[in-house]
Amino acid sequence: MDELEFMVSNVAEVPRLHRPVLIEGLPGVGNVGKLAAEHLIREIDAAHASNIYSKHFPPQVVVGDDGLTELVCNRLYYFKREERSDDPWVDSDLIFLVGDYQGLTPEGQYTLCYEMLLLAKEMGVEKIFTLGGYGLGQLVEDRRVLGAATSLGLVDEMKNRGVIFGDGDQPSSGIVGASGLLLGLAPSFSMEGVCLMGETSGYFVDPKSARAVLEVLTSVLGIGMDYSDLELRAKEIDQITSKLREIEDGSIPDMGKEDTFRYIG
Amino acid sequence: MDELEFMVSNVAEVPRLHRPVLIEGLPGVGNVGKLAAEHLIREIDAAHASNIYSKHFPPQVVVGDDGLTELVCNRLYYFKREERSDDPWVDSDLIFLVGDYQGLTPEGQYTLCYEMLLLAKEMGVEKIFTLGGYGLGQLVEDRRVLGAATSLGLVDEMKNRGVIFGDGDQPSSGIVGASGLLLGLAPSFSMEGVCLMGETSGYFVDPKSARAVLEVLTSVLGIGMDYSDLELRAKEIDQITSKLREIEDGSIPDMGKEDTFRYIG
Amino acid sequence: MDELEFMVSNVAEVPRLHRPVLIEGLPGVGNVGKLAAEHLIREIDAAHASNIYSKHFPPQVVVGDDGLTELVCNRLYYFKREERSDDPWVDSDLIFLVGDYQGLTPEGQYTLCYEMLLLAKEMGVEKIFTLGGYGLGQLVEDRRVLGAATSLGLVDEMKNRGVIFGDGDQPSSGIVGASGLLLGLAPSFSMEGVCLMGETSGYFVDPKSARAVLEVLTSVLGIGMDYSDLELRAKEIDQITSKLREIEDGSIPDMGKEDTFRYIG
Amino acid sequence: MDELEFMVSNVAEVPRLHRPVLIEGLPGVGNVGKLAAEHLIREIDAAHASNIYSKHFPPQVVVGDDGLTELVCNRLYYFKREERSDDPWVDSDLIFLVGDYQGLTPEGQYTLCYEMLLLAKEMGVEKIFTLGGYGLGQLVEDRRVLGAATSLGLVDEMKNRGVIFGDGDQPSSGIVGASGLLLGLAPSFSMEGVCLMGETSGYFVDPKSARAVLEVLTSVLGIGMDYSDLELRAKEIDQITSKLREIEDGSIPDMGKEDTFRYIG
Repeated sequence: MDELEFMVSNVAEVPRLHRPVLIEGLPGVGNVGKLAAEHLIREIDAAHASNIYSKHFPPQVVVGDDGLTELVCNRLYYFKREERSDDPWVDSDLIFLVGDYQGLTPEGQYTLCYEMLLLAKEMGVEKIFTLGGYGLGQLVEDRRVLGAATSLGLVDEMKNRGVIFGDGDQPSSGIVGASGLLLGLAPSFSMEGVCLMGETSGYFVDPKSARAVLEVLTSVLGIGMDYSDLELRAKEIDQITSKLREIEDGSIPDMGKEDTFRYIG
Repeated sequence: MDELEFMVSNVAEVPRLHRPVLIEGLPGVGNVGKLAAEHLIREIDAAHASNIYSKHFPPQVVVGDDGLTELVCNRLYYFKREERSDDPWVDSDLIFLVGDYQGLTPEGQYTLCYEMLLLAKEMGVEKIFTLGGYGLGQLVEDRRVLGAATSLGLVDEMKNRGVIFGDGDQPSSGIVGASGLLLGLAPSFSMEGVCLMGETSGYFVDPKSARAVLEVLTSVLGIGMDYSDLELRAKEIDQITSKLREIEDGSIPDMGKEDTFRYIG
Repeated sequence: MDELEFMVSNVAEVPRLHRPVLIEGLPGVGNVGKLAAEHLIREIDAAHASNIYSKHFPPQVVVGDDGLTELVCNRLYYFKREERSDDPWVDSDLIFLVGDYQGLTPEGQYTLCYEMLLLAKEMGVEKIFTLGGYGLGQLVEDRRVLGAATSLGLVDEMKNRGVIFGDGDQPSSGIVGASGLLLGLAPSFSMEGVCLMGETSGYFVDPKSARAVLEVLTSVLGIGMDYSDLELRAKEIDQITSKLREIEDGSIPDMGKEDTFRYIG
Repeated sequence: MDELEFMVSNVAEVPRLHRPVLIEGLPGVGNVGKLAAEHLIREIDAAHASNIYSKHFPPQVVVGDDGLTELVCNRLYYFKREERSDDPWVDSDLIFLVGDYQGLTPEGQYTLCYEMLLLAKEMGVEKIFTLGGYGLGQLVEDRRVLGAATSLGLVDEMKNRGVIFGDGDQPSSGIVGASGLLLGLAPSFSMEGVCLMGETSGYFVDPKSARAVLEVLTSVLGIGMDYSDLELRAKEIDQITSKLREIEDGSIPDMGKEDTFRYIG
């Protein structure tokens, strides 16, 4: 049954990458990491490298608008720099790990992250960014970016980029899922990594928090970015939340509530 | 323990089959797939080939009216054509996968479907039909047949048979369980496949939806079919649902309710 | 990790047994099978052969009155006949499978029953009795013994002993757990078997139902039996149930209820 | 995937230990065992030997005040005696097993304890102390220490130290988790062991119960101990519980309740 633990299906041949950095953006709190990574992939036009299938994902296919089935998977994308740079971050090629699901069980999570790091090692990865949201349990105006890292060197480097570490707001119970586990297992693979967490309410998909995370990440990686997509998405969410607040305030009746929720997901 | 993952117990010797098509009809929404596949097996008198036992099924025996125990299993049937045809579908022999249970866990589902496809590959299978129901969450008069497939060629072919693809009614969360997973894993085995889903309320076993699915399927396979069994079954269900509606309307008291439900399963 | 699937720890050397019959009495509905098998073991003074440990049992020790810990396990006992007989059942030595737990998961149940049958095969077992209760969901006066078997020969033989087969009262959903699974897997080991189920309410431990099962079993095996232990136990349960009925009837207040329940387990 | 079952990551080189005794203090009822073992480690300044990672722990990192991530793990510490003694207990070096989690599933618990004992065997361990709490379900003034052991010799020896065995207060359902399982599996490794359980309410972390357990343990091991840390901790808990009692009595309003609870964990 080992085949079903972690099956890599190549979509395209991946060229030799130069000191690639792995960037993880799987679903999680406010879908911040997923939104950020997928926005970045679109904006820099990263190439689809491969799909990862596993019995640790739901036993399910998704059906596209064209009627085609696709087995639930995680996907790897890569991005090759056109120019070299003296700044190692800006010099690094990129590998993205995205998808619609994380492993369903704790054991599945461990297996997937461990195998992912084995694969990343083979591709030459030494540094990792994991992206996520940090749920505050209340609506937020300004979204700060909190961090956690595997080494003090990275902590210092990211502090200089405005990331907040070791604050009392820090998640006391730690970071759960792939964003945490990839960092937790990284030292066994002689890798280093940082988790960037955008503050978010935790109630909605949060494109503003994804943008806050991306602003830090792209500044580090030396990538210019257009955020109009995320802004548009954010406006839609804003309209919904303000509508919901009005409903709560009683300023409008809640008959539109069910409809409203349809737009959130 | 590997024996317990997927144990095939042969009931009869299976002759060499000619380009067999695999047809799956395991339990699911409205039991549409199960009803359809089992009706087809009975009507064409397909032969019982083997039983599949697994630790991913419930730890349970069923007891027949004769007092005999039988371990919970999936069953394979086969049907050999008497004549050759120029139409590849009509020329193909058939293999049926039916049973009372699907794998209990996501990992069990993956293991069973993967092993099933390995076995099907050995038997020469290149094409798959998976049959199921698509729950609408409300009572329906006309049951359309929705589809999903692994290739655009099959999508087009089935569209010509009246199957609806890529409609807004399409299941957005995808197809869960064996009907989805067999298609999702099929490309790894160089197989193609179609899922035919009959619309159904999702509240009852739905022989009418099974008939709608069978009409498409048998037209493709070039098999004449008698539906009197399913019609009879459908009438019984109709009587129950109309009785229930009367109870809801208050036109009759609900003292008969408990009795009524006994006939549904 | 395979050691933890099924570890046999021998307590005594088991002599060569003559065509031994395996008798299973693990916990279940009304604890009927467990009561029956353990009573029989005590009455004929069967010898403790071995313990079976497994990661499929709860991660737990029991603590005896002497303060000693014992890892949760199943236990095998054996009984060697002193005389030969022409009746194969009466001629057979006996092996008992008892314990405080069954496997915690469906996969655990399969693994334990499969390994148990492997072990039984090595010991020469060809026939199995599994003992259990059949819950009626209401208080019962007379406890009939229902049966299910792996062959029509055994069905007929047990019918002659007064066991009821294929009645409408038969469990339609089948027999769940070790009592069912051992029979379900038996044919793969060229074994035959019978499940004897004593009718019981399902609300209480039921020594009367255990006695009904034992009367059939010991008549088949040609063993005389004293039931005073079970009778005593039954009287205690009767007192509790009649007290509970009075409470329900309102004839006595329920302040004694909590105390009462302490005696039931 | 076997690497993920039980990964030992050495933090320091462990010198050859003299007949080491394993002392387990993982989280459990009232966190008594964890508090006791960690207090002892601090007071005698035991050295951090290694970390144990496993897919049976939560897929999670903890984040320190310095912003550094650490994968959830169990930790081993060791303590080497400076002098030899005629009393075997006092002569023995010590190994501690502590951490923030136990295995998440029954199978995980078995695997972790089994592998831990394999490792302990390699290190020369022959005797084990497991430390825990025994929840009484009510507030307690005096905390007795209850015991369970793998041999009558150890039962007698600990009785002489004031530990209570085989009392009616003994946990009838046994000892669940690592404290029980390590003892249950010990005989398979030719090891002996004792579980020391401090009585506790089960409602709060209980440093007083940890002290009661430690007083027995350090008397056996011939170690002098300062309890000021635990006393301080106990006073904090006392203040909270008395405050809670006042709230229950209605003598003070419960507006401070939420704040209060923050200190308990």
